[in-house]
Amino acid sequence: MNMNKDKTSSSLSKQPYKGTRDLFPPLKRTQDYMFSKMREVAHLFGYEPYDGPLLEEVELYKAKSGEELINEQIYSFTDRGARFVAIRPEMTPTLARMVAQAHKEMSKPIRWYAIPNLMRYEKPQKGRLREHWQFNVDIFGAPQLMGELEILELAIVLLQSFGASDNDFEILLNDRQVVDDIFKKLLNLDSEIVHRLYKIVDKSQKVPKETLDHMIAELNIGSRETELFLDYLQIKSFEELFLFLDKNNLQTTKNNLEKFSKLLKDINIFKFIKYDPTIVRGLDYYTGIVFEIYDKHPDNRRALCGGGSYANLLQIFNEAPLPGVGFGLGDVTFKEFLSLHKLLPDFSKPEVDFLISYQTSDGEKQALQLANSFRSLGLKVVCNLQVIKIAKCFPLAERLGAKFVVLIGEDEIKNNFLVIKNLQTQEQHKLELNLALDSSNENIKNLKTKIKEICKK
Amino acid sequence: MNMNKDKTSSSLSKQPYKGTRDLFPPLKRTQDYMFSKMREVAHLFGYEPYDGPLLEEVELYKAKSGEELINEQIYSFTDRGARFVAIRPEMTPTLARMVAQAHKEMSKPIRWYAIPNLMRYEKPQKGRLREHWQFNVDIFGAPQLMGELEILELAIVLLQSFGASDNDFEILLNDRQVVDDIFKKLLNLDSEIVHRLYKIVDKSQKVPKETLDHMIAELNIGSRETELFLDYLQIKSFEELFLFLDKNNLQTTKNNLEKFSKLLKDINIFKFIKYDPTIVRGLDYYTGIVFEIYDKHPDNRRALCGGGSYANLLQIFNEAPLPGVGFGLGDVTFKEFLSLHKLLPDFSKPEVDFLISYQTSDGEKQALQLANSFRSLGLKVVCNLQVIKIAKCFPLAERLGAKFVVLIGEDEIKNNFLVIKNLQTQEQHKLELNLALDSSNENIKNLKTKIKEICKK
Repeated sequence: MNMNKDKTSSSLSKQPYKGTRDLFPPLKRTQDYMFSKMREVAHLFGYEPYDGPLLEEVELYKAKSGEELINEQIYSFTDRGARFVAIRPEMTPTLARMVAQAHKEMSKPIRWYAIPNLMRYEKPQKGRLREHWQFNVDIFGAPQLMGELEILELAIVLLQSFGASDNDFEILLNDRQVVDDIFKKLLNLDSEIVHRLYKIVDKSQKVPKETLDHMIAELNIGSRETELFLDYLQIKSFEELFLFLDKNNLQTTKNNLEKFSKLLKDINIFKFIKYDPTIVRGLDYYTGIVFEIYDKHPDNRRALCGGGSYANLLQIFNEAPLPGVGFGLGDVTFKEFLSLHKLLPDFSKPEVDFLISYQTSDGEKQALQLANSFRSLGLKVVCNLQVIKIAKCFPLAERLGAKFVVLIGEDEIKNNFLVIKNLQTQEQHKLELNLALDSSNENIKNLKTKIKEICKK
Repeated sequence: MNMNKDKTSSSLSKQPYKGTRDLFPPLKRTQDYMFSKMREVAHLFGYEPYDGPLLEEVELYKAKSGEELINEQIYSFTDRGARFVAIRPEMTPTLARMVAQAHKEMSKPIRWYAIPNLMRYEKPQKGRLREHWQFNVDIFGAPQLMGELEILELAIVLLQSFGASDNDFEILLNDRQVVDDIFKKLLNLDSEIVHRLYKIVDKSQKVPKETLDHMIAELNIGSRETELFLDYLQIKSFEELFLFLDKNNLQTTKNNLEKFSKLLKDINIFKFIKYDPTIVRGLDYYTGIVFEIYDKHPDNRRALCGGGSYANLLQIFNEAPLPGVGFGLGDVTFKEFLSLHKLLPDFSKPEVDFLISYQTSDGEKQALQLANSFRSLGLKVVCNLQVIKIAKCFPLAERLGAKFVVLIGEDEIKNNFLVIKNLQTQEQHKLELNLALDSSNENIKNLKTKIKEICKK
């Protein structure tokens, strides 16, 4: 009655909001498959699920990332209670808030994961949408390097759980401690210049050589410093890095990284890791190991996943430091990775065990009851809710992805049976129709035995 | 380096945004359990998953629900591209938009479900929060009454899948056609009065008798009309309703409902249904059967779930009518229902199979490798990432919900074995330590056999 007929307008768009997706069943099944493997792998490592609010106060994001970084990219607004809030663009600030609330009562390490939906205001492009889901995995309070090790291992096992092979991806890794050592101890630069150098490192792979040189020249850091910095950017492996650190007397950091690379070798994941001096994860809150997982496919040279260790995430709540390590993996880029490497099953059709159909209206009651009984056995059953000709059943079953079709026609009712057709083998089976008529325990037991026989054949 | 120390402030709140929840692991596990059963039951009936954007243009909500209904309750704002958008307060408009896009190419009926997070601007109170998740199930294009039947059945099977018994809930049901017939055919009222009467019906259970009388009196609809209306509100069962419809010559509607009640009896769910003349589902878009599932627990007399059939949802997109039936079930009220009836397992602890520990740093490598091997068998393994005394292992295992503890001490390493302790039976098993040292297929096979033996004991 209140359909607001006057509002009916041909201008009402059927398209989703810019940069977001309508997840029709084939896509949603794909996403559910991805999510279920994420959960599975998190649980294999003993990580516990959490989630938080869709909205947080903007102050929280500012405290974590700084004013200039968040203003451009967040969906913020003032609510009716004059709170300045934002739709979560990332999960880490919420995570930090929750850990700050609870960590004192929790035994360490804390192992948590989440798969939240996030929104960022950005120009939609390949692999980057305004709305996406992100698998977030974090460990807090693990012994130094051990948390880093476990987090990397978990990320690798995740990719492997989808069938990714050693050649499909690589992990580019760096240590912010190396960068800090070089900038602060070796080059003795003040924090403003360090800040700008970090920006340059972060961009160094994305800009031409001349631009890079120009950016460095602008800093006026002296020729020895410039040379050292450029030497650093040329480092291509752990061996080269260790030589560089040796040569420059950065022994503590070298020892630490050597120990880490030994651990990586111990558990046989060193083969995935490549040292890359340009990985710093932006101006973010990381303080130690940082990494990005890269697709090795030539058509998709991009990071699937980024993460690292951070010492001071709880500091914004005036809590004592609790070191953490974590990563985030977005569903859009990850799905592209899986598609490109042909690691996704076909989700175009649903998965249904039985299509139950009746060819006479007298079969309706039996069909409905049979559907009930089958479902109580855990079978996925679509009941065709009206009389349908036999010939039309099969294309329908095909569209539904059904494995068996049940037929209940006039003959069947007269002679008290029903026909089950296996669509793969084309075999037919008969079953007493009265099995459908009550769902007593005894009856269900008999039905189960018979269905098991039929399904196995 | 960029932790914005100047922003560090003791005023940064650790609490979640008003009316939202921090889902710490025990609560998130509970929610995941609820969601997985929802998916399971949807799949038993052949419903396919979908999802849509977090934001929609406000126009969409206005077109569906009308200006006055949405302005108060939505989180709306203008984006940087001058689009007036809202965080989804409900899923139905998005569903309608997506079905309007795709229905022409899809075989009917279309069976879809989703579990979106939604936000409504409202005063937080028991069972009502600003953010919640809602299980949405809809069928489009089913033969009349058959979609209604299936949707009711699915809702009942869902509750039963959690262990709810016949006495835990009831379904209050009405038919908007009955109400329309009475108001339009019998009382011959114009649409403005009908509109106001719908509001009165909707409120009739929530206000005292005097207020109700006063509201009716204000309509000035005459004494015969008032009496008929009050008679209608007194109807307590299908029998009384059928008598009322007979007496007033509303035969078509009566026949329809009689047919429906016979179908409900056929599949043995009539016992859950109670006719209730006051159920109309507000001023919403429903056109036929409407229902609410009520908790029968005296401490929680409230609706868990509401739904019904609607003929014209696609009309706002200028699409031809495609009848639908659906319901929505919110996670907050549903969890209260499940808690109150003691239908929730204990999710206070995680579920872990093995805690792998080492009592000497020489055991680190073996522990890490063993953890890997165990995980490749699908076992959930927490590896303690530092040397830990045996005595401390057991309380830790207890907190982790671990079933077994692995111990690797000096003796074990010297003699090439490890100890597995079953925490329930206190039994101990020894296993060759070198099984942990490589993860060749042969080795994993042997390990699997041994672990199976141990876990079964």
